[in-house]
Amino acid sequence: MAEVLRVQVLQNILKVNDYLADKLRKEWKETRTLVINLLSSPGGGKTTLLEAALPQLKDQYRVLVLEGDIETERDAQRIQALGVKTLQITTGGTCHLEAHMVEQAWKLTQEEEPFDFIFIENVGNLVCPASYALGEHLRVVLLSVPEGDDKPLKYPKAFRSSQAFMVTKADLLPYFDFSVERASQEALSLQPQLVTQVVSAKTGEGIKEWVQFLQKQRETHFLVTTR
Amino acid sequence: MAEVLRVQVLQNILKVNDYLADKLRKEWKETRTLVINLLSSPGGGKTTLLEAALPQLKDQYRVLVLEGDIETERDAQRIQALGVKTLQITTGGTCHLEAHMVEQAWKLTQEEEPFDFIFIENVGNLVCPASYALGEHLRVVLLSVPEGDDKPLKYPKAFRSSQAFMVTKADLLPYFDFSVERASQEALSLQPQLVTQVVSAKTGEGIKEWVQFLQKQRETHFLVTTR
Repeated sequence: MAEVLRVQVLQNILKVNDYLADKLRKEWKETRTLVINLLSSPGGGKTTLLEAALPQLKDQYRVLVLEGDIETERDAQRIQALGVKTLQITTGGTCHLEAHMVEQAWKLTQEEEPFDFIFIENVGNLVCPASYALGEHLRVVLLSVPEGDDKPLKYPKAFRSSQAFMVTKADLLPYFDFSVERASQEALSLQPQLVTQVVSAKTGEGIKEWVQFLQKQRETHFLVTTR
Repeated sequence: MAEVLRVQVLQNILKVNDYLADKLRKEWKETRTLVINLLSSPGGGKTTLLEAALPQLKDQYRVLVLEGDIETERDAQRIQALGVKTLQITTGGTCHLEAHMVEQAWKLTQEEEPFDFIFIENVGNLVCPASYALGEHLRVVLLSVPEGDDKPLKYPKAFRSSQAFMVTKADLLPYFDFSVERASQEALSLQPQLVTQVVSAKTGEGIKEWVQFLQKQRETHFLVTTR
């Protein structure tokens, strides 16, 4: 008698999300598309960081930006103004992006496929997005100087699940009691491989380095060389 | 034949939460306890606002502070240092407070009951806490200047469900392209009864007015006079 083929049905929403995220990650590996998932509080500087970095990437690479918001298309309009392909994902109340939302948006870009970089700007929320993989190769958590350096331990999952940690709005360091060292050490206590980077979109500090870091990440992940 | 007594069982977590929140609100009405639920992004200034306002309330009134955090007791330690009764609610991952958490914490203070004011500092998150009533009489949403004045429409539920809107870190207005007028108008488009207040814990701007507003709210809600 032939063995019965069993399928373990995925039981909960998080497992279904992980399943779909893994599928996306594999598809993007084939096309050497580095996918970056940006996490921060509202006003943490995700859109502004993209506005600063994309001009240094868009001529050399094929770039797609997926903008996650509960309501409004404000961020997508800002990015589109740079001449970068942008899609808005409006969640209509949901506090985070999920892999199926990303897949649906990305499927709309098939004609322009494949991309070298896909940036996903998650909903502004330092809590819930950390629980949902989106198929990204690189999760980046941003903490802006005005939020305070005590946040990593208070919102541990976002830091524990990221590969890079960016201190944003660094031009404000002189006005705040924010220690990059303290924030970085605390984040490292949660995730010892975390790379800390200090940036200011206003002064340009750290932007070139961040772009180089992304290029390097793409080379390392897919064994490609920078064009 | 006698009519059958029907109980409509509460079906989902939000309805159960509302049921419990209503019960708490009634209990607090009896003791003339004004309960304030503070909502903001991480680092939006909730704890700092309390640090600035509580010294003006604590000698005249019996005050309790409930501190909601995912991890750490940092905020509770800061408030306790002011000599105000404080309880920490650590959610262990949950991105918002729920009425049952508040009830459990509050029940631990029975010996010191009743309070004139209970401040509930919610988890730093501009999205999820807006969906959960905690029995409060007054919901206050904070938006700090560095977050940007475009946030009300992007996070509408927090503004739509609040009675007061506080622009915090107002001492930073000269350094940011933040228009109080723009933010306020946008918030009013979501909730026309919203009262906007501009505060800076650093300079003290608006703190006295906020304390007076709270006293007035308590008088209006419970027809009591300020001691």
